[in-house]
Amino acid sequence: MFLIDCGEGTQVELRRNKVKFSRVKHIFISHLHGDHYFGLIGLVNTFSLLNRETELHIYAPKGLKEVITLQMKLSGSWTNYPLIFHELSSKASELIYEDDKVEVYTIPLKHRIYTNGFLFNEKENERKLDINLVREANIDVAYYRKLKQGFDVVNEDGVLISNAKVTKDAVPPKSYAYCSDTAYHEAIVPLIKKSTVLYHESTFLEKNEKLCLPTRHSTAKQAATIAKKAEVETLILGHYSTRYNGYEDFKTEAQTVFENVVLAKDGKVFNFD
Amino acid sequence: MFLIDCGEGTQVELRRNKVKFSRVKHIFISHLHGDHYFGLIGLVNTFSLLNRETELHIYAPKGLKEVITLQMKLSGSWTNYPLIFHELSSKASELIYEDDKVEVYTIPLKHRIYTNGFLFNEKENERKLDINLVREANIDVAYYRKLKQGFDVVNEDGVLISNAKVTKDAVPPKSYAYCSDTAYHEAIVPLIKKSTVLYHESTFLEKNEKLCLPTRHSTAKQAATIAKKAEVETLILGHYSTRYNGYEDFKTEAQTVFENVVLAKDGKVFNFD
Repeated sequence: MFLIDCGEGTQVELRRNKVKFSRVKHIFISHLHGDHYFGLIGLVNTFSLLNRETELHIYAPKGLKEVITLQMKLSGSWTNYPLIFHELSSKASELIYEDDKVEVYTIPLKHRIYTNGFLFNEKENERKLDINLVREANIDVAYYRKLKQGFDVVNEDGVLISNAKVTKDAVPPKSYAYCSDTAYHEAIVPLIKKSTVLYHESTFLEKNEKLCLPTRHSTAKQAATIAKKAEVETLILGHYSTRYNGYEDFKTEAQTVFENVVLAKDGKVFNFD
Repeated sequence: MFLIDCGEGTQVELRRNKVKFSRVKHIFISHLHGDHYFGLIGLVNTFSLLNRETELHIYAPKGLKEVITLQMKLSGSWTNYPLIFHELSSKASELIYEDDKVEVYTIPLKHRIYTNGFLFNEKENERKLDINLVREANIDVAYYRKLKQGFDVVNEDGVLISNAKVTKDAVPPKSYAYCSDTAYHEAIVPLIKKSTVLYHESTFLEKNEKLCLPTRHSTAKQAATIAKKAEVETLILGHYSTRYNGYEDFKTEAQTVFENVVLAKDGKVFNFD
């Protein structure tokens, strides 16, 4: 389970949404504006009170480690679990996390301060065995792994069995690109190309586009333009300015450019299937 | 309006309780454990977003200024209103705030790190004029102020009028002593003597008294003992450990020592009259 950004009160929201704290092992912080990290110190602290033992990894711009460390020092305590900071400062996209199933890359964004989005790429899944066909083909169990990896194999009778004959295509890997906060920034398009889901901030509507330049935020239409150019499947909008009442206009505006738009809201769950 | 301590989510609670943000001008932080100050940076930040112009004064242990300043620096911004830190490090009680009506003193407490309680003392109120008697006595308006201050004055006929004859006693000044977090610490008794209201932490019940020493917290009975020795009028208990279900036992235990006990709870309002 990955947590992306951590505003004030995140621990309360995690509880409200019944997320088990111990499952949160990796936290990704996009940038050091308060609405994206003021809840982190409280979460780190609460994990200690709950006698957590599991490692916690924090991926964040350089500077956050100093903030957390200073506050720990002043409280005269430290976590009783390993707290590991991965400080980010590169202006180019980089691989910052990898396990058996997923890779995470930074997506350098264009905001008032150093900011990264994050791209979560599922690795290629293995091909699926059609177990009846595999057995009929008289293939030794030892070769199943090779079959899943896409190889043709020799059966017990010495006959070469074509992989396509006994396996099915793997489930296509999914990907999630989180892009907040950012001005309209076409440079991200190749990085997030054909993502399954793109979350892109849309602070403003087009009628207030002039506010984008000083604040380095995007309109709903700009977010949709990025989604279209990147040929993603689904666009999630969020990070709406409080100046607007209701958010349906964000969807309407985005859909003039890109059809498959959904609106983020507190506590909403998105299923990628 | 004074805000004492500021845990995570305080800004949400202030809104929920309809406290006007602009009225908060002085914030007192007892010590640098997270549950007493993690909400401060968010509040300071939100004040900026609301275009506050009024000064904000923060009275807190040395170190907090560095935490807030560091976070501001990393966010590439500063408040658009004057933010004034009063860093505390004295181990003796000191006067840290004064205006026409109130004085605020620190109450050095005994906790795991440097901690102060705060004593809010109303100044002596002025005597009340009995306006009918004053007029009958033929006293010039120019002398009303002297009368309120308790002086005898000469009337327009040159006769000395006794103050007691034309004024009533002032409303007795009230005082509030906030003592959290602290172990049982008799040294505070003379400082908070005869306070109108004492808030004293009671983290534990007597049956868990052995936990007080390592954590430097108090039991309900210890809080009540302080209240009794200090001869306060009312004791408010709070800061209960989450190990207990329900808090009535705290009241029962405290009342074995001191009768006038009330239990603090989220959002509760206490009227000092």
